Amino acid sequence: MSKEYVVAVVGATGAVGSRMIEMLESSTLPIKQVRLFATIRSAGKVLTFKGQDITVEETTENSFEGIDIALFSAGGGVSAKFAPYAVKAGAVVVDNTSNFRMNPDVPLVVPEVNAHALDAHNGIIACPNCSTIQMMVALEPIRQQFGLERIIVSTYQAVSGAGAKAIAETEREIKEVVNDQVDPKDVKADILPAGGDKKHYPIAFNALPQIDVFTDNDYTYEEMKMTNETKKIMEDDSIAVSATCVRIPVILAHSESVYIETKEVAPIDQVKAAISAFPGAVLEDDPSQQIYPQAVNAAGHRETFVGRIRKDLDAEKGIHMWVVSDNLLKGAAWNSVQIAETLHERGLVRATEDLKFELK
Amino acid sequence: MSKEYVVAVVGATGAVGSRMIEMLESSTLPIKQVRLFATIRSAGKVLTFKGQDITVEETTENSFEGIDIALFSAGGGVSAKFAPYAVKAGAVVVDNTSNFRMNPDVPLVVPEVNAHALDAHNGIIACPNCSTIQMMVALEPIRQQFGLERIIVSTYQAVSGAGAKAIAETEREIKEVVNDQVDPKDVKADILPAGGDKKHYPIAFNALPQIDVFTDNDYTYEEMKMTNETKKIMEDDSIAVSATCVRIPVILAHSESVYIETKEVAPIDQVKAAISAFPGAVLEDDPSQQIYPQAVNAAGHRETFVGRIRKDLDAEKGIHMWVVSDNLLKGAAWNSVQIAETLHERGLVRATEDLKFELK
Repeated sequence: MSKEYVVAVVGATGAVGSRMIEMLESSTLPIKQVRLFATIRSAGKVLTFKGQDITVEETTENSFEGIDIALFSAGGGVSAKFAPYAVKAGAVVVDNTSNFRMNPDVPLVVPEVNAHALDAHNGIIACPNCSTIQMMVALEPIRQQFGLERIIVSTYQAVSGAGAKAIAETEREIKEVVNDQVDPKDVKADILPAGGDKKHYPIAFNALPQIDVFTDNDYTYEEMKMTNETKKIMEDDSIAVSATCVRIPVILAHSESVYIETKEVAPIDQVKAAISAFPGAVLEDDPSQQIYPQAVNAAGHRETFVGRIRKDLDAEKGIHMWVVSDNLLKGAAWNSVQIAETLHERGLVRATEDLKFELK
Repeated sequence: MSKEYVVAVVGATGAVGSRMIEMLESSTLPIKQVRLFATIRSAGKVLTFKGQDITVEETTENSFEGIDIALFSAGGGVSAKFAPYAVKAGAVVVDNTSNFRMNPDVPLVVPEVNAHALDAHNGIIACPNCSTIQMMVALEPIRQQFGLERIIVSTYQAVSGAGAKAIAETEREIKEVVNDQVDPKDVKADILPAGGDKKHYPIAFNALPQIDVFTDNDYTYEEMKMTNETKKIMEDDSIAVSATCVRIPVILAHSESVYIETKEVAPIDQVKAAISAFPGAVLEDDPSQQIYPQAVNAAGHRETFVGRIRKDLDAEKGIHMWVVSDNLLKGAAWNSVQIAETLHERGLVRATEDLKFELK
């Protein structure tokens, strides 16, 4: 009989953590036990896994004895501090934060795209940024057949990407506008656009062209994640990627207006066929019937939906498309559990001998 | 003493019409009288202009005797039918619909950009599409100094662009979700994405990549308006323009993620200076202070706000920016009244001898 795993979810009470538990409930992973971790504030809370009560424990350096797989989604600081201890204790970590993504010792994986990168893991595997993941699922089938020269992407991102507090803030703001007739510009905000930044702006009836904080080059970290992670996942630094990341008043599912230039001319019917055939991608594209991906339809699903595929009006190798996926599922919880399943399928759930990560 | 005008608003009871009346109230145009027109359904309704009651009249072929300037915003069909009669009666028509925009006998005007095109008018001047207008205000200062090779734009458009019924539908849908806990995908829709199309989808907590109906090339009419109108306004068919037009749950003000390639390399500080100096444009761009244009701040203002200006990460002549403006003001009512003011300033409010438009 094959081994059954003890699986930990670190950040179990958050927006992504709760989705991770759901994804584990329907996972093909052979699970012996699930353990749930969070900050001391949430410790003692009782959550359920397959109908069974599980008490949330505080995450400590000594939490990881006996754990085979640890899914982290409790913020970059928590991953930086505790993931190396989990690896030292013999676990494989799937980290949903940005902390280890660009570390050369850490595979950055979208299983449909670069599962092979898992083979060289050193105990930590990073799950890419939500906005990157769905773009990779849409573009990899095109890259495989026609090559990829450049990407220009404008995102329409859901507030759930900023966590449970951002969801609550959005709902509170919208109620103030529609029920209490507060002018949208006078609504008070405490979280968005970025919890850690100086100023906060309303998202109700607004579009905020800032996700995460700004970097020195006037792009945001979110935008630079899309650039850097794409190159790492596709293993090609020559792909040009520039992003504009925008938050809109949607709770679930990110939408993206993606423009690409391929290396070879890509006939649209072949592009559509390639996307249709690609695992995890669903073609929703029939303008004559007004069929195109929509956030409200993608919410709750694991697939990435692609439509509005059409030639640029001028550039021979230019193609436009509209890419939508549930940011908490494929963008986070499902991609993380899918990485765990793939590690299992490839026989890669194993303790790491040579610890490559600093214990802090 | 200079002449004072009789000004008509056709479509006076609509979302744009009511804003036209407001813009006329604060206009520099010497106004003797304002007359208001709508369909027979709205005729008899009483609106006010500078505190004075004005009864809405039914629009007929004989409505335009004695009128000097007629502002049309009652749908393309109404303009097609009645604008030629207004011209025949001696009025100058400023038409806010798409009906005459691409007619070679009709100037298509954003006053800051191509006021000179008014000189050759034949009685009808077209006001461009809302999403085009604000992009022109942002890009003309750059085009003048550095030339313009191509534009790739993704829009984040407010529902008010689809009229008063779309605003009401959006508010109703959002209340159903936040107050009655209806799942966003189960909300019923009757108007959006396009009143005249077969299917209707919820906009609450959604992003709809369809504005207006689809054309044969899988772009929507809204998208093709941005392409064709840009070339006409900038008087350069060689500018490549491809658009993705998207409706989001915002009531007022369109946002746009605009990527351009200039003919000459354009230093960012010079681009910012050019936009700052351009009439009608306001630079809002300081990432260190989280300053960028926002829909909720642009609503109610006549200017076009531009920010997030930065170099493409790879293309030497590539620049990204974020452009926001009130779609009912600069995008419609204000641009129309501003055209009327410019006609007056240039001595172009005059009857047309040779009628170029078919009386239907």
